[in-house]
Amino acid sequence: MRILHTGDWHIGRKMNGLDLIEDQSYILEQLMHEIENSDIDLVVVAGDIFDRANPSRQALKLANDTLYRINITLGKPLLVISGNHDSRERLNYGSEWFKATDFHINTSLDQAHIPVTIGDTDFYLLPHIEVLEARNYFKDEDIVSHQHAYDKILEKIYGQLDQEKTNILVGHLYLSDSVASDSERPLSMGLSEAVSEETFSAFDYALFGHLHHPFAVDSEKSFYSGSLLKYSFSEHKQPKGCRIIDTDKEKVSFIPLEPRHDVVVYTGDYEEVANGNVSFKDNNAYFKFELSNMSYVTEPMSKIKMLYPNTLELKPLIEDRSKELQTVDMATTSDEEIYQSFIETTLDRAVTAFDKTMFKSYFAGEHNETD
Amino acid sequence: MRILHTGDWHIGRKMNGLDLIEDQSYILEQLMHEIENSDIDLVVVAGDIFDRANPSRQALKLANDTLYRINITLGKPLLVISGNHDSRERLNYGSEWFKATDFHINTSLDQAHIPVTIGDTDFYLLPHIEVLEARNYFKDEDIVSHQHAYDKILEKIYGQLDQEKTNILVGHLYLSDSVASDSERPLSMGLSEAVSEETFSAFDYALFGHLHHPFAVDSEKSFYSGSLLKYSFSEHKQPKGCRIIDTDKEKVSFIPLEPRHDVVVYTGDYEEVANGNVSFKDNNAYFKFELSNMSYVTEPMSKIKMLYPNTLELKPLIEDRSKELQTVDMATTSDEEIYQSFIETTLDRAVTAFDKTMFKSYFAGEHNETD
Repeated sequence: MRILHTGDWHIGRKMNGLDLIEDQSYILEQLMHEIENSDIDLVVVAGDIFDRANPSRQALKLANDTLYRINITLGKPLLVISGNHDSRERLNYGSEWFKATDFHINTSLDQAHIPVTIGDTDFYLLPHIEVLEARNYFKDEDIVSHQHAYDKILEKIYGQLDQEKTNILVGHLYLSDSVASDSERPLSMGLSEAVSEETFSAFDYALFGHLHHPFAVDSEKSFYSGSLLKYSFSEHKQPKGCRIIDTDKEKVSFIPLEPRHDVVVYTGDYEEVANGNVSFKDNNAYFKFELSNMSYVTEPMSKIKMLYPNTLELKPLIEDRSKELQTVDMATTSDEEIYQSFIETTLDRAVTAFDKTMFKSYFAGEHNETD
Repeated sequence: MRILHTGDWHIGRKMNGLDLIEDQSYILEQLMHEIENSDIDLVVVAGDIFDRANPSRQALKLANDTLYRINITLGKPLLVISGNHDSRERLNYGSEWFKATDFHINTSLDQAHIPVTIGDTDFYLLPHIEVLEARNYFKDEDIVSHQHAYDKILEKIYGQLDQEKTNILVGHLYLSDSVASDSERPLSMGLSEAVSEETFSAFDYALFGHLHHPFAVDSEKSFYSGSLLKYSFSEHKQPKGCRIIDTDKEKVSFIPLEPRHDVVVYTGDYEEVANGNVSFKDNNAYFKFELSNMSYVTEPMSKIKMLYPNTLELKPLIEDRSKELQTVDMATTSDEEIYQSFIETTLDRAVTAFDKTMFKSYFAGEHNETD
């Protein structure tokens, strides 16, 4: 079986206020082309079809048209779960009718242990869940982390797994060995959202959504599809596309898809950029410039936009802080460093002694509710 | 064929700020009982399933569950059009899949002339339309009223009507011979929305939504289903339910459905009501009281609610205006009188000479844009 694995479409997403719907329509067209021409048996969308719980009519139409083309026009079975951005009720609308053409949407924990069988393969569709929800569902107050919650859910699934079949999990979660980008990093500094990859070891494959980097996890069995597009400037170096899993040949390949606009971050000198001395592959890309020597320029954005009309962000580059402003590697950075970087880059001020006390008190475990 | 004709569900409606979703769930249960037990072949919902273009998740769920039960659980073909309250794009979501089980939604003028054939009957599903839309669709600037628009649409349908079959139109519009209530009276004082009943004379039956009174039109072939519930106090005397059309026996009957709460308007004396001297069928009904001798009472609403907890409106009855405050019969009342009544009852002030000048200038044709 040849499975096309995609996810994190985030239809209706905006980037720095810019509506990306045209870009999304364009990239979904590329995806459709892939589905049509790569001898695909089935399509998996691993959550976050929509960017918002209540998508606009335009977003709803694009999703409907896309799902229609995959499932009805091209006749491919289609497996979908809800991500943290989707509204379960809204995504679930009409789903009972969709089943007739092997379009299966699961938004409920209740259905996660009931496999959808396509050919020789059992698919377990596990929507994005919250800890509290699992706690209520299992009536178990001991569930305090995502790891606990998933252990409990999988215990139920593993109890009935048909080993004669190929078993595939579809999920939307944060694997602990993976690296997040700004778009999906949880606000909580702790890692209680993380679930270890081993949790899913009984499956032949585990196909995930949530993290936007398609290589966020390094594994032969677990994969993130990655998002359809670069949805924040922190994703500017990430490849974007879809994955094809050939279960018979045990071959997995990532297929890059060409977007309508690339997302580019450039750090350098204002004059160099404004004078057109820097060459870019596409001047119509969505740019973020961090430029030095800009403080005495009036209306620098207007000038930059004359050359690069789709510039979305322009920031002065403050030399001595330039290093700190680079992308933070979440895997190798401590919580305290991330907190510090958050204050400096987002709040745009220096870290105070008070901040450090607060961090220690709240995030580093010195705070005790029962004191 | 036995057709159950319903419409104007307005799921998600509020009345004086009160969420009616529980009442709607209750009455839809009664409707379901009727569908299940009255040997129905097919269900028609003539528009305004939802009250708002962007329904809440709760409203969406109730609609989904109801449509599912009719179409899948009870296995009845289901014909739905969009009303002026529905969002076409949202209502249309998933509709391609629904067709497989004879659940047909039409939200587009484009599809109105293509009949849905069920047994020996052709159904023409005509969504609510606006004049401007018809003008664009037909590329005809001469279309300036609903009457023009519908003439044009029906010209197209009549050109291909199969006279061997029973032909039924489903529409959502304002028949000129009918009487509107506050809930659906257009804000425009003119009657450019009105369409004559004769327009639909070539059909065996025409099943409408829009007006909330199930007897808003007096005809043997054209019917309004009426709304599911009394959705404003002006509807307090209207029967509510659904209609069954037996096309073989040429028999049409209206089936009243019992709501969870009735809607009651009572005009009288404050003391009589507060002392419990007035007897009502159900003290838990949704009440509107217009009471005299209330001006010196502190917190009259609290006192009234001790007896009638679901009182939604309490107004002082000003004796000498009491007659004017009665329900206005739209059919026999002039536009000027309606305008006057609007100022008095809604704006709660007397009509001034300036108001009268304004009315003459804007509504009575004395105003000329080209002056």
